[in-house]
Amino acid sequence: MTPSQRNQDSELAALLAPDILVMLEESPGDVAAETEELHPKDLADVAEAMPTDRVAEFLRALPAARAADVLEYLDEELRSELLEAMSTEQAVALVSEMTPDDRADILEELEEETADEILQDLPEAERQETERLLQYDADSAGGLMTTEFVSVSQDLTSEQALVLVRVAARSGRKEAMHAIYVTDDRGSVVGVMSLRELVAAAEDSKVADLAWTEVVKVPATADRAEVARITSEYDLVAVPVVDAFDRIIGVITVDDVIDAIVEEQTEDVQKLGAVQPLEEPYFSAGFWSVARKRVGWLVVLFIGEMFTGTVMRSYEETLAEALALTLFIPLIISSGGNSGAQSSALITRALAVGDVSIRDAMRVLLRELGQGVVLGTCLGTIGLLRALMWGNTPTLSIVVGLTLVAVVLVGSVVGAMLPLVFKRLGFDPAIASSPFVASLVDVTGLVVYFNIARQLLHLR
Amino acid sequence: MTPSQRNQDSELAALLAPDILVMLEESPGDVAAETEELHPKDLADVAEAMPTDRVAEFLRALPAARAADVLEYLDEELRSELLEAMSTEQAVALVSEMTPDDRADILEELEEETADEILQDLPEAERQETERLLQYDADSAGGLMTTEFVSVSQDLTSEQALVLVRVAARSGRKEAMHAIYVTDDRGSVVGVMSLRELVAAAEDSKVADLAWTEVVKVPATADRAEVARITSEYDLVAVPVVDAFDRIIGVITVDDVIDAIVEEQTEDVQKLGAVQPLEEPYFSAGFWSVARKRVGWLVVLFIGEMFTGTVMRSYEETLAEALALTLFIPLIISSGGNSGAQSSALITRALAVGDVSIRDAMRVLLRELGQGVVLGTCLGTIGLLRALMWGNTPTLSIVVGLTLVAVVLVGSVVGAMLPLVFKRLGFDPAIASSPFVASLVDVTGLVVYFNIARQLLHLR
Repeated sequence: MTPSQRNQDSELAALLAPDILVMLEESPGDVAAETEELHPKDLADVAEAMPTDRVAEFLRALPAARAADVLEYLDEELRSELLEAMSTEQAVALVSEMTPDDRADILEELEEETADEILQDLPEAERQETERLLQYDADSAGGLMTTEFVSVSQDLTSEQALVLVRVAARSGRKEAMHAIYVTDDRGSVVGVMSLRELVAAAEDSKVADLAWTEVVKVPATADRAEVARITSEYDLVAVPVVDAFDRIIGVITVDDVIDAIVEEQTEDVQKLGAVQPLEEPYFSAGFWSVARKRVGWLVVLFIGEMFTGTVMRSYEETLAEALALTLFIPLIISSGGNSGAQSSALITRALAVGDVSIRDAMRVLLRELGQGVVLGTCLGTIGLLRALMWGNTPTLSIVVGLTLVAVVLVGSVVGAMLPLVFKRLGFDPAIASSPFVASLVDVTGLVVYFNIARQLLHLR
Repeated sequence: MTPSQRNQDSELAALLAPDILVMLEESPGDVAAETEELHPKDLADVAEAMPTDRVAEFLRALPAARAADVLEYLDEELRSELLEAMSTEQAVALVSEMTPDDRADILEELEEETADEILQDLPEAERQETERLLQYDADSAGGLMTTEFVSVSQDLTSEQALVLVRVAARSGRKEAMHAIYVTDDRGSVVGVMSLRELVAAAEDSKVADLAWTEVVKVPATADRAEVARITSEYDLVAVPVVDAFDRIIGVITVDDVIDAIVEEQTEDVQKLGAVQPLEEPYFSAGFWSVARKRVGWLVVLFIGEMFTGTVMRSYEETLAEALALTLFIPLIISSGGNSGAQSSALITRALAVGDVSIRDAMRVLLRELGQGVVLGTCLGTIGLLRALMWGNTPTLSIVVGLTLVAVVLVGSVVGAMLPLVFKRLGFDPAIASSPFVASLVDVTGLVVYFNIARQLLHLR
């Protein structure tokens, strides 16, 4: 990956990379100290600005914990390449320094054989922990959570709890300490408090009295979109994950929630643009892989759109009698498609953020009928005037105007209802993309157009 | 707002609301204790499930700090309505319990007169703080930040710092304690540490040695999209905001960043659907306000699309000679629009997440030229076969096939380059919506079609 592929942050990286490359040649022992002040994310940018075959050398020059941090921020493709190229021993040393959730995520990206080799060589406890995390779907709460969190028994005093927290914080493990969970004998979460609340508490207060009992939690099977919604609605910095018996098994931290929100949104935008989600940044995704993810929808939409030809053939006589009708075809079908694109964008997003649910279908329908009439009347009026200005007969102009009202109405309603229908059927509403809506509305629009024309112009 | 307007969370709320309404009649003194276990967000849902004129009464039954929490989670429209209806005294009591950033946000939503009244009656220190926050654009780092944060001098020991933090935490102010900032004499941030790191530190260690010196910070004028990108890339839970002299003046907490990300995404999806951003949830936005935000783009697109009529009129003789050409018009223009929608979705999103920048324009162009040729050839082949099957001459079928290749190529390139052009001109790339791209490509597609037809079919 060259610097030009990255955003402006990489300018600093592009400046530093050559110096660090020279230092790696001349005095590799100084690299760690010289780069100590940089954030791991910036070091990852530096690594990405280097020739790929020098990155492993650069990581070896850093302390293992630091190198592991840099690896976590590295571009996914480059990271996999590096880990697959280095010795299993070096890979294990790096991977075992990571938090359990990042470790599992990274192993999932690797080829199965490499991942297995690394997994087998991890210390026993870490291996088991990682294997357990790998069982969860990467897009579920279980796949997002880390297993290093702090929980204390509800019977402790705040002083005792703080000692436990201190020990945990000093252990060198990377526990999530955004929140401290209070559990009963069975391991169920009965409360939560922030480290700040624990620190602020009087020494002899009971943990059970300090903690908030209104704990927001998610099951391990919850979808990442659900986790994102809950985190955002309740303003959380961490969400506890519970098993089927309500026992806490992990914690999702807010940085992973943000990543999930951003990925979910990328998928939605791509689906709304009729592209199967890429899963990789634009330039990292292979040319043929992108083409494959586009061609499927293009062909489906193309086949759907072929019905416009079928419709037009069946009205060929009507068309032959009034060739002027053809002049308005693109204008009419695009207006239906545009109003449909608007409605589907509004409703898809409203569903995603929870402003609208399937139960609101009737209200949405009524509202979009109203919008369709208003917007259709606007476009219909402009269309009618334009048709007159082009020297068409008043009757033909009225045909164009009326058709526009009808087509915008159909577009608004279809665009709004389709995401609800997909959601109801268990699909992602975002597949009701504007091209998808447009192709449905195009065929309907033509049928409406020719029928209104036949009636008013007395054609065959 | 009725329960049906809200998502599934409100089911609990809809169940609880009637009981609480009865309790408000019979024993209002019990409401606070009975609802103590609920999260403020859930209480906000309960409030939204009540008749609007009872909500103020419900809030009065809660302790002021608790009522302020509920108010923060309440639907914006309902909140403004409530604050404007209640006495200035009650409003001041609630608003002064809020964090400075929420207080400023809420005052900004109110009518200026009401906001001024509340502002004047706030305690002096809070009034000044709020007025200062109100000077920043709501969508900037200054508008997102809170001014209640904890900073310690670099000369302290960890024990001294922890005492300060304890005092701050016990003060009752709602300081953001996700991170503790270390400052020098001039108030510049020279380091940052988590409360966890402070708690874990040995008592006699120096704050200056404990803190990370690689502090990621943003200027008060930074755009919220920039704040979101930095928070997400560096995995932060809080971002310090600095003034022009690099002095820390506030902190943006991750919950506000998530809200900013979600709002930014909603705007992008709406723009990509050719709707001016609504700023309110789908049902809360007024019918006419939505219609206004849709009609602008619809009319612009309609006027753009009128050129298809102009083009077709100028090829009227060509069309009259070969009426069969008309049958393929919707198929051809929609294929261009669809491939354009795909490219614009891919590039708009890649720009938003920083995978692509303006400097990559040439690489994007080359890649999309390639995609256009590949995808166009697929659709062109299907189109050619379909035209033959419909009984058209081989020459006409070849015209259709070739036009499809050209149109998909144009669509892919225009769809990809337009967001880059808008970004370059300082506009939001998301206005390169699929309808916008389609309307450009439709006109070009027709010109290409008629010219290929004229050449190969020897028409006028």
